[in-house]
Amino acid sequence: MSAIERGRLRDTAPVRLRPGELATLFVIGAIGGLIGDAGHVQSGTTVYLDDATPFVWKSALWFPVLVGLATASIGELRLWLGPPRPGYDARVGIAAIASVLAIYAVTALVHDQAEVPGTTLIVMLAILVACWLGGGTPAIICGVAAAAVGPLAEVIIVELDLAMYSPLADSLFGVALWLPALYFAFGVVVARLAELLVARRAS
Amino acid sequence: MSAIERGRLRDTAPVRLRPGELATLFVIGAIGGLIGDAGHVQSGTTVYLDDATPFVWKSALWFPVLVGLATASIGELRLWLGPPRPGYDARVGIAAIASVLAIYAVTALVHDQAEVPGTTLIVMLAILVACWLGGGTPAIICGVAAAAVGPLAEVIIVELDLAMYSPLADSLFGVALWLPALYFAFGVVVARLAELLVARRAS
Amino acid sequence: MSAIERGRLRDTAPVRLRPGELATLFVIGAIGGLIGDAGHVQSGTTVYLDDATPFVWKSALWFPVLVGLATASIGELRLWLGPPRPGYDARVGIAAIASVLAIYAVTALVHDQAEVPGTTLIVMLAILVACWLGGGTPAIICGVAAAAVGPLAEVIIVELDLAMYSPLADSLFGVALWLPALYFAFGVVVARLAELLVARRAS
Repeated sequence: MSAIERGRLRDTAPVRLRPGELATLFVIGAIGGLIGDAGHVQSGTTVYLDDATPFVWKSALWFPVLVGLATASIGELRLWLGPPRPGYDARVGIAAIASVLAIYAVTALVHDQAEVPGTTLIVMLAILVACWLGGGTPAIICGVAAAAVGPLAEVIIVELDLAMYSPLADSLFGVALWLPALYFAFGVVVARLAELLVARRAS
Repeated sequence: MSAIERGRLRDTAPVRLRPGELATLFVIGAIGGLIGDAGHVQSGTTVYLDDATPFVWKSALWFPVLVGLATASIGELRLWLGPPRPGYDARVGIAAIASVLAIYAVTALVHDQAEVPGTTLIVMLAILVACWLGGGTPAIICGVAAAAVGPLAEVIIVELDLAMYSPLADSLFGVALWLPALYFAFGVVVARLAELLVARRAS
Repeated sequence: MSAIERGRLRDTAPVRLRPGELATLFVIGAIGGLIGDAGHVQSGTTVYLDDATPFVWKSALWFPVLVGLATASIGELRLWLGPPRPGYDARVGIAAIASVLAIYAVTALVHDQAEVPGTTLIVMLAILVACWLGGGTPAIICGVAAAAVGPLAEVIIVELDLAMYSPLADSLFGVALWLPALYFAFGVVVARLAELLVARRAS
């Protein structure tokens, strides 16, 4: 392979996240998962049924680990889907994280309210986050992938009797009707974080 | 009339919405009305007292029809008030619709809470939407017109015993104190949608 | 002192708020405090225990006075911390005020809900406001100063038996756990208002 061919390959091969960036996404996801999950557990939105594993704050240890892995995976998916947008702004990243944690908290606060307005609110907030952060098709794919895989994993967790959703918020195969919207916002936010991590290299 | 006179007239005559654009606004309003109203009915914010007309989801058929007509009318009002702003961005339109549906959902969720903080929240959210979407005097006029006509129409609906607001949310002549703020946000959002529909012609 | 020295002094001396601008901040703070406090009192988030002073709406007279003085003081602090950002936009100021009053209302609405998601929501909303309004270190200092002094003053008010927080929202030395986040948003917003007031002079 000539140097020119290697150069071309380098131009078209997707950018990859570096180990430190993957670790950053893992930690952000794990801490965010702990905060959001504590709100779900304390409000009774969800209940852990199995105490075979150690607990961290209000979560079974495996929960923040799974969220951290999902966060790193969606970050990689985002870069695999196309070149990231340039431009680094730490404030955008902080606000993106805050927005999905705010939605997470709202789900806990509305879980025992009427399902239609509660779900409508979460869906609309997720759409607002997606419109705000933008990112086009790659961001939407990350959001849809998270909205599909996340709730499916939680349905399996419920089926395995490891945890359950409140009877007031379990109408989607045992999980909450608003759960895909929460995961959609999560996926869109993580896609933006991956872009920002790459853009930070040049800043 | 000479060609020059006709040209001048064309320059000053207001842009009008085309039939397809009016139909688009009607459909957006009708669907949005159905979603918001389902939240109101399910949460007990409002109750239909008359079942003489068919129901669609949780709404009497005339409700989404009225909201659809109001949406198309406010769109026309916006263009009659002055030339629309240029620039088409589908994301702005989607986010504008999502923002008013989010506020609609919040009204259902707070209808049985203390009236001052609930109303304060809705008013402030409506102000935030107006500041965000901008549009100056025409948008404000559309918002104020909706805030006046919409609640008045609902007061008449309540007086006709077709529907009622929860006793916890009926302190404004039988309708909710936050209702004008919700309609204000609705009017401002529809004004923006009308502008976007015209701007889309050139895009 | 030569004219050149006076010129240099003028270049480095901090901009000060004029009496009318301080009065504007005082009035904005006092009215905002009255609206937010009415929500707290009506929802039972807080209770006044002392009726030795006259009441305005639902607040003891000293409350809006204190908030007004705090607003003017933080405005002065902002200018003392560095030159204000240029650019006047009334909509930013209105939206900034609306955002902190919205958060204030949300605190009243969630005060009797589970503490973790309620506090998470308020903290994230405060972070979102700070990211949106920006302003760098001076704004952050104003926010942190407000987050320290405000709750401390309220702890003293509670200790003096002038008022109390609901037993459901008094876990931070007798005041609510979300109170520093609300004051942080307040401080950041007032910092922006001070900048806008100075920028308005040139507009």
